[in-house]
Amino acid sequence: MAKLTEYKDMTPRAKAVVEGIAKGRNVDPARINNVWKALARHPAVMERFAEQMSVVMAPGKLDALTKELIYLAVSVTNQCDYCIASHGAMAARKGMTPEMHEEFMAVVLAAQQGNKIAGAYRVPVDAAFEEE
Amino acid sequence: MAKLTEYKDMTPRAKAVVEGIAKGRNVDPARINNVWKALARHPAVMERFAEQMSVVMAPGKLDALTKELIYLAVSVTNQCDYCIASHGAMAARKGMTPEMHEEFMAVVLAAQQGNKIAGAYRVPVDAAFEEE
Amino acid sequence: MAKLTEYKDMTPRAKAVVEGIAKGRNVDPARINNVWKALARHPAVMERFAEQMSVVMAPGKLDALTKELIYLAVSVTNQCDYCIASHGAMAARKGMTPEMHEEFMAVVLAAQQGNKIAGAYRVPVDAAFEEE
Amino acid sequence: MAKLTEYKDMTPRAKAVVEGIAKGRNVDPARINNVWKALARHPAVMERFAEQMSVVMAPGKLDALTKELIYLAVSVTNQCDYCIASHGAMAARKGMTPEMHEEFMAVVLAAQQGNKIAGAYRVPVDAAFEEE
Amino acid sequence: MAKLTEYKDMTPRAKAVVEGIAKGRNVDPARINNVWKALARHPAVMERFAEQMSVVMAPGKLDALTKELIYLAVSVTNQCDYCIASHGAMAARKGMTPEMHEEFMAVVLAAQQGNKIAGAYRVPVDAAFEEE
Amino acid sequence: MAKLTEYKDMTPRAKAVVEGIAKGRNVDPARINNVWKALARHPAVMERFAEQMSVVMAPGKLDALTKELIYLAVSVTNQCDYCIASHGAMAARKGMTPEMHEEFMAVVLAAQQGNKIAGAYRVPVDAAFEEE
Repeated sequence: MAKLTEYKDMTPRAKAVVEGIAKGRNVDPARINNVWKALARHPAVMERFAEQMSVVMAPGKLDALTKELIYLAVSVTNQCDYCIASHGAMAARKGMTPEMHEEFMAVVLAAQQGNKIAGAYRVPVDAAFEEE
Repeated sequence: MAKLTEYKDMTPRAKAVVEGIAKGRNVDPARINNVWKALARHPAVMERFAEQMSVVMAPGKLDALTKELIYLAVSVTNQCDYCIASHGAMAARKGMTPEMHEEFMAVVLAAQQGNKIAGAYRVPVDAAFEEE
Repeated sequence: MAKLTEYKDMTPRAKAVVEGIAKGRNVDPARINNVWKALARHPAVMERFAEQMSVVMAPGKLDALTKELIYLAVSVTNQCDYCIASHGAMAARKGMTPEMHEEFMAVVLAAQQGNKIAGAYRVPVDAAFEEE
Repeated sequence: MAKLTEYKDMTPRAKAVVEGIAKGRNVDPARINNVWKALARHPAVMERFAEQMSVVMAPGKLDALTKELIYLAVSVTNQCDYCIASHGAMAARKGMTPEMHEEFMAVVLAAQQGNKIAGAYRVPVDAAFEEE
Repeated sequence: MAKLTEYKDMTPRAKAVVEGIAKGRNVDPARINNVWKALARHPAVMERFAEQMSVVMAPGKLDALTKELIYLAVSVTNQCDYCIASHGAMAARKGMTPEMHEEFMAVVLAAQQGNKIAGAYRVPVDAAFEEE
Repeated sequence: MAKLTEYKDMTPRAKAVVEGIAKGRNVDPARINNVWKALARHPAVMERFAEQMSVVMAPGKLDALTKELIYLAVSVTNQCDYCIASHGAMAARKGMTPEMHEEFMAVVLAAQQGNKIAGAYRVPVDAAFEEE
């Protein structure tokens, strides 16, 4: 298990990261997710990851839900239990219905097969795709 | 390299699969993608994968582009070169702009890190996520 | 690309490994597979892997073809192109027919999905399986 | 943890899938494995996976035990704990002895190394394998 | 969960392996790590892995801590919880400070991204690297 | 293949990144590695990755060679051909001798096996490791 550091016991540097996240989500810093309690002892890694997440997950040309689905697709492929639990919950909060979740899973499972088919049959890339 | 079977040399069973795909995409069966030319010698696998792809990639609660992005996220995570080339091209045809592609990549890269952080720090799932 | 060392240019230590493999397969040492030409500059790794392969791939409680199919299943899952090409060829030489190959692929593809389903739905292990 | 739906609480569509599986295995539908209880809320994914498993795992040109070993090799490579527990148990029921299990593990471990060796040394595929 | 065999209940062959490891680490064989209790029922796999670990992890041209960091980098990439816990502890015993651990994690996370970037953008190897 | 943008054709934003890297390595910006030519069309991803690499790969509590070995261990595990070629060359430039490379490979291969053993035998983490 991770060595979790509660907010009240964090260094000022780690506290600042947690406060930024908590403010953005409008929650109590003391109730921050475990991943940040685990990262608190490595402030440089924590700061970099927090900054990156806040920038890349914000809505842009892709909306917030689409970004969560992309994040979740990576997490299911990598079989990351924590990420599946946390980003699955976040996707639901951002509008993923059970029906959308089912379609998401159907695509992820088809892709797993497509990936292994391409490798197993040693399929060369079509010239048409090389040009695009 | 794959043993590719051209459309004209396929069995009737494989031809039928190719014709169904070609019709759905309004293209010449002779110009079908290499993955189907590689699968032609394994008709049961070919039929199952073609049927699955046609059902799950069709627009539903998630639109066609979102589904392509999910497929592409899996393919980048699995480092499948053929799938990155083919589904990257398909995503572009379905509306993925270079700006969307860049945001897609930014999310995929953040997720790779989030997945490894969760594992490396052995982060337990928050009780709040367990309940959802 | 690998730095390949031809048999005639190998050190005596690497030559000895190649000769052992070539003798077991009844082939000319000069025609050894590329993996051994690549490993020749790292003799300790080469010796260990050659010894391990010769022991574990020999028929025992599992026959030689079943062992090749297990090796190939790992290689498809890891998407190792060299291993798919080489062990696919070896499986064919040991009796894998095209029909068996197709059934093999069907099982591998089902397993990829089963693995991702178990992770994505966070399925707990049944008590019955824990006891076995 | 998964949201598990017990058989008695499933929709008619999910119940039908469970009944088909239970009948094929001659067991009580109420004692179905957890993976099906987890999939019950996504009936289209559940139906597709159940159909695929029933077809591809049935004995054909490859016997039932060989198929379980292939499935297990994929699961160990992907490090899927649920699948290792469940298909390990199923392999044992289908005849895998402890001695066969040990040989299976020895091959899987050799293959993991062979896969990484081929990648790390960037070994090109032998011309002889390209032709086969 | 693994079927763990306590030292006192092991076969003479498994006991011999455990005694060799315990002697090398100057600990009581009864307090050997769980991985060896799990491997005890497969003595050939156990012997091979124990021999390999004792040879390759010993200081040589690379010192013992560098070797632990390499082992840990593989384990984080493969998301092996047991290995992260055990080799993280061993790295700490061999001199990995919290500051070194943080730098280690920063490199591992950068590498995960570099790997996915190279695949996603389909980057060809530079001619300069091919020559080296 | 990647769409590579030569330095002279890059946007000012991408040129600035390349110039920073080239200056740090004391090379001609026109001879920058392909990964940067591929990233040039996605400047935000390019800037973030360049900044991250320059910070985390610099010598600190871990020296430059140790960091390259960690990066290479991740790359071999993920089977990233570009990364193995490029960071293998960089490790050599930073002092990795052929003997060190061989020891590196021996550890990586042992770790691959240790990771799969822990998963396949479902080994629980020792209490002693949980406390550390």
